[in-house]
Amino acid sequence: VTERGRAALLALAVGGRGLVDPEEPVLRADDDALLRGRAAFETLRVYGGSPFRLDDHIARLAASAERLGLPRVDPDAFRELTAVALAGAAAPDASLRLYWTPGREGAGRPTALALVSAIPPHLEEVRARGIAVVALSLGIDADRRQVAPWLLGGVKSTSYAVNMAAQQEARRRGSDDALFLSLEGLVLEGPTSNIWFREGRTLHTPALDLGILAGVTRDTLIGAATARGYSVAEGAYELDRLVVADEVFSSSSVREVVGVVAIDGSRVGGGAPGEAALELQQALRDAAAG
Amino acid sequence: VTERGRAALLALAVGGRGLVDPEEPVLRADDDALLRGRAAFETLRVYGGSPFRLDDHIARLAASAERLGLPRVDPDAFRELTAVALAGAAAPDASLRLYWTPGREGAGRPTALALVSAIPPHLEEVRARGIAVVALSLGIDADRRQVAPWLLGGVKSTSYAVNMAAQQEARRRGSDDALFLSLEGLVLEGPTSNIWFREGRTLHTPALDLGILAGVTRDTLIGAATARGYSVAEGAYELDRLVVADEVFSSSSVREVVGVVAIDGSRVGGGAPGEAALELQQALRDAAAG
Repeated sequence: VTERGRAALLALAVGGRGLVDPEEPVLRADDDALLRGRAAFETLRVYGGSPFRLDDHIARLAASAERLGLPRVDPDAFRELTAVALAGAAAPDASLRLYWTPGREGAGRPTALALVSAIPPHLEEVRARGIAVVALSLGIDADRRQVAPWLLGGVKSTSYAVNMAAQQEARRRGSDDALFLSLEGLVLEGPTSNIWFREGRTLHTPALDLGILAGVTRDTLIGAATARGYSVAEGAYELDRLVVADEVFSSSSVREVVGVVAIDGSRVGGGAPGEAALELQQALRDAAAG
Repeated sequence: VTERGRAALLALAVGGRGLVDPEEPVLRADDDALLRGRAAFETLRVYGGSPFRLDDHIARLAASAERLGLPRVDPDAFRELTAVALAGAAAPDASLRLYWTPGREGAGRPTALALVSAIPPHLEEVRARGIAVVALSLGIDADRRQVAPWLLGGVKSTSYAVNMAAQQEARRRGSDDALFLSLEGLVLEGPTSNIWFREGRTLHTPALDLGILAGVTRDTLIGAATARGYSVAEGAYELDRLVVADEVFSSSSVREVVGVVAIDGSRVGGGAPGEAALELQQALRDAAAG
């Protein structure tokens, strides 16, 4: 997406070692994270020095690790590592990424990493204008990932090559991001975000049983929207429903709430970020401020 | 699979640095290979000090890199790196893995790695008894990956978490390996191998336009089988066809030719490695000897 670029790595903490110079190599060549993309990860936002909903992110990391067959995640160890990394960066607003790799092939010595990076530049410009997305099929039937755990639906692993290739395809088509559809054409999620649309005072977002990621920000917004008098529905939606909706927006931890102003080259929601996107972005910031 | 375990890393060569102690960390925490599984790789067999069909593997690495949007692969650099790594290992028979990572996030400084590892133990025992596989659906329709390049069909990236999860599921069910099916039930490939079956003097293997990996060993066997008087057909096959075939086997660079003796708990091919598997394993060794 357009705000991509070098997200300057401000601080790095490594399990068992504490703060480590980000310039220092920390993974061996035969780490399973490199060899097979078999590491669990989380990305979260740090507001005013506090990682937002850290425990929920660590819980999801633990669930991903279990599904990937990795050693058990110790939540306390990740909380400590996070504190070390954040103290090392001294950036009140930042992006925090947590990684849990199984370690060297066959050795069974996992590694925990906490990376603090600068917020990508131009994010507020992107939020002001909104993004254009293209719908790309994942080619998988919507019910499949519920019954086929090996497809890792809802698991946040570092095997993100398809997600990145989809974003690349979107940019090749002159858009900012991709929106994944199921085989049947049901709307699923973005490569790194959840998707929403508004019809009057009702907000809709795809249901988790479609095998999508259970976004922590998605969950925050469900609560915030309900508290502000919206009805929130989780369901299975055709793309057409979004095209004619009052507005469309995406949610993710670092990019937060961003309006979607075009789908497949056609304007949606009047071609500008909508009122719910603006209101929920503010609500998210309020929630983060405590 | 049963022969998994610590594949002892014998030597490591890193682009621009030459031979590096395998104990030394070489990747930074913000390498895209870790962050997003967006690296291209190849695995090949070294016979008597010579990497088998190295140029073909490097060509496939270059094709994978292009599809992943990575910087262009320099074949000469990989040939040199391979020579350095092999000289450092001094193991006449080994497994060689080549990696091409895009480097640190946003920095655009890719890294080439060549890893020489011991051949996994117990491989000949596995070959003597054959393996049991379970059929697992990928949930993708068979034609999809041809028209949806972002799904990375036929691309060898390090985003292998689903492949590993499928092998894990297979072991959970008491088998050795998985066999991927399309949504329609067509046989595709194993997580790290191609699949074959024999009917009389005809060998069948799934066609590349199903979005499967174009195995270098698969290609070697097509030539070797034809030279030995087999007909070789590439097509789209239902699983039932394999269940009643005269024999079933898999091919891959390091495991080479291994008979499949059970599918989903039912004996296939008489429950023992078949004659074509044995003959083609010998043919592969002859080709490697040269």
